[in-house]
Amino acid sequence: MPEFLELLPPRDALARWMSSLSFSIESEEIETTAALGRVTSQAVVAAEPLPAFPRSTVDGYAVKAADTYGASDALPAYLQLIGEVPMGAAPEITLGPAQCALIHTGGMLPQGADAVVMLEYTQTTGRNEIEVLRAAAVGENVLKVGEDVDAGEVVIPAGTRLRAAEIGGLMALGFTRVRVAPRPRVGIISSGDEVVTPGQAVLPGQVRDVNTYTLSALVEHNGGIPVCYGITPDREEALYSKARQALDECDVVVISAGSSASTRDLTARVINRLGEPGVLVHGVNVRPGKPSILAVCDGKAAIGLPGNPVSALVIARLFLSPLLLALQGQQVRQEPVRLKARLTLNIASQAGREDWVPVRLEKDCSDGEAIYRAEPVFGKSNLIFTLARADGLLRIPPEANGVSAGEVVEVELLE
Amino acid sequence: MPEFLELLPPRDALARWMSSLSFSIESEEIETTAALGRVTSQAVVAAEPLPAFPRSTVDGYAVKAADTYGASDALPAYLQLIGEVPMGAAPEITLGPAQCALIHTGGMLPQGADAVVMLEYTQTTGRNEIEVLRAAAVGENVLKVGEDVDAGEVVIPAGTRLRAAEIGGLMALGFTRVRVAPRPRVGIISSGDEVVTPGQAVLPGQVRDVNTYTLSALVEHNGGIPVCYGITPDREEALYSKARQALDECDVVVISAGSSASTRDLTARVINRLGEPGVLVHGVNVRPGKPSILAVCDGKAAIGLPGNPVSALVIARLFLSPLLLALQGQQVRQEPVRLKARLTLNIASQAGREDWVPVRLEKDCSDGEAIYRAEPVFGKSNLIFTLARADGLLRIPPEANGVSAGEVVEVELLE
Repeated sequence: MPEFLELLPPRDALARWMSSLSFSIESEEIETTAALGRVTSQAVVAAEPLPAFPRSTVDGYAVKAADTYGASDALPAYLQLIGEVPMGAAPEITLGPAQCALIHTGGMLPQGADAVVMLEYTQTTGRNEIEVLRAAAVGENVLKVGEDVDAGEVVIPAGTRLRAAEIGGLMALGFTRVRVAPRPRVGIISSGDEVVTPGQAVLPGQVRDVNTYTLSALVEHNGGIPVCYGITPDREEALYSKARQALDECDVVVISAGSSASTRDLTARVINRLGEPGVLVHGVNVRPGKPSILAVCDGKAAIGLPGNPVSALVIARLFLSPLLLALQGQQVRQEPVRLKARLTLNIASQAGREDWVPVRLEKDCSDGEAIYRAEPVFGKSNLIFTLARADGLLRIPPEANGVSAGEVVEVELLE
Repeated sequence: MPEFLELLPPRDALARWMSSLSFSIESEEIETTAALGRVTSQAVVAAEPLPAFPRSTVDGYAVKAADTYGASDALPAYLQLIGEVPMGAAPEITLGPAQCALIHTGGMLPQGADAVVMLEYTQTTGRNEIEVLRAAAVGENVLKVGEDVDAGEVVIPAGTRLRAAEIGGLMALGFTRVRVAPRPRVGIISSGDEVVTPGQAVLPGQVRDVNTYTLSALVEHNGGIPVCYGITPDREEALYSKARQALDECDVVVISAGSSASTRDLTARVINRLGEPGVLVHGVNVRPGKPSILAVCDGKAAIGLPGNPVSALVIARLFLSPLLLALQGQQVRQEPVRLKARLTLNIASQAGREDWVPVRLEKDCSDGEAIYRAEPVFGKSNLIFTLARADGLLRIPPEANGVSAGEVVEVELLE
């Protein structure tokens, strides 16, 4: 297996691959209500300030702060009540000296007012007069114009994945449409003479396709559109013609190959025929998933994944997920979130190789440092239910020579 | 404000509310390919073992282990090569004594074989003979029948949210359809005389609706279907008739009310008219979001949220999210995942009250304990971009009297 002579660490393999691709982010305009999880393709700039008018943050009386200076329970300030601020409209009141207006939370300050006194610090004396029992500072209980956002401010940078808060922020500014990166199309091919469609009867020696579905789920999770090309036999022309079609129609092609040496070689040959420069990485120093292929074919990314379902999903998380984020121009958080957890059992590992071990997480509130306990789920990488029984993947870094029970480790959650 | 006399801690408020609801989980059968993120309504039981036949995990020769005992470089075992196992079919070979067959990774073991010798530990001597240079134990390099899953085994318990691995596991067993809990329908109403639809021109004193959209995103994230009923003015009959319709058509009703005391009272009155027992919790000892309402109306849940967008989202995460998981019967991980992070600044807090503070997270690889640094994003709870600028919410527990810079705190990521 000469192609395995040089086994790159995953980080270096990813860097070599990504640096051979150019990412020019396209842009499409969509409804903001449909933009959850999408990535902005240009900065969102506020056309107006937020709030657009000075607003009260409490129920009380809009006042001129100077009129309340020195006010106390013993020596209240007396103010003339000249009206009530309506909700949802500009007040038609202008405060003169020693005047005030009733105002509700969220109401617009009338002309002449510069503070709001909370209801609790006032008393009504008669029909048109109140006592203010505490002084208010200028700006007290008031949201200033532009306190959230200034006009012209970049409120959402390009490359931001839109969450609930950003969707709300866009609406607050009146942006009912937003420009985002198109969802990358990922062509998924399963190859293997033994692989059959799950809906089909299975004969001895055959197994049902798993990778098409786990990879589709991962693609969706990362904002891509999975395009499934089904199962091909382990014959070069059959695989090539399917891969050719997928590369023409999609932004990325993923082939989960059989696991034997000959089918791995077949995948590499087919990918090399798809375009220049072809295979850039063949073999990664990681377990599971060592016999993985990273390639660029005429400017588009292609990946050859091992056929074992656990290996395929681990490798897709390591390489396909960051690729999809990059194809959408996502700027923040290149690495997935990692939790600290305390390992319950010793795990052996080979120095120089990065290992990913499925673990179950249990909450451990007694542990000041880790919150969670991580219990390894042992099982061969052919066994999809090894992953189904796990909450996350524990990373054993290349420099480690295994991890001991009781150590605090980093775990990525499985999505 | 008599209803605030008894301020329950969030945990107790949630418990009081949830214990007044009965959760009978309905069930619907859907395509497995569309089931990502859905929750199983019954246990999935394997009808057959996985693997269904003994499989080789390597490229090599299927052998009888006993024929290789004592084999070494110096003293190889000589085996007669009687054929090759085809991929995807049962081999038509039966091994006799001192016989072997070529087999590929994933191939089915022939009759008579009980181990596989890796290609690396063999040499071919002539057309129909190989040398085995190392002994193989019974079962070596073989996936046994049922090693992943036994026939009759519960492979996915009821109440499991389906991730990529479970989707793959279902397909591996041939389950192209799966029974899941229906997605709960959540009626969302924004109330407020000052609130207008984002697409509309805004006059002085008016603000655009934010909560309909942030809450819709949260509902979707938790597997629910948001049903938006738009904006109602702060008049009891208008709000009541909209809430009545929402309660009739949905499983849950969420009203984000104005923030003034009078509109909060209005929401409580309307909810009490919707059905028995009505409001169960009015006021929670939490910031932001103290003036929240939790109710049960004729067996359905209703929530009154503060109008401030940050408060509304924080409270919805605390109460609506766990409700939606319970309505889908989700059994695992009742609390969202929390990260440990080291706080960069002092934060004051009132003992007895639970506080949630928006924070930005920065990766800190140098920190053995925390991985992340958490920097507070200060801003009033009226300001939606306070949340848009944050990665997560830091929880200050009720027993704490603030948190000091340098302390390790728990952060929930914003979705």
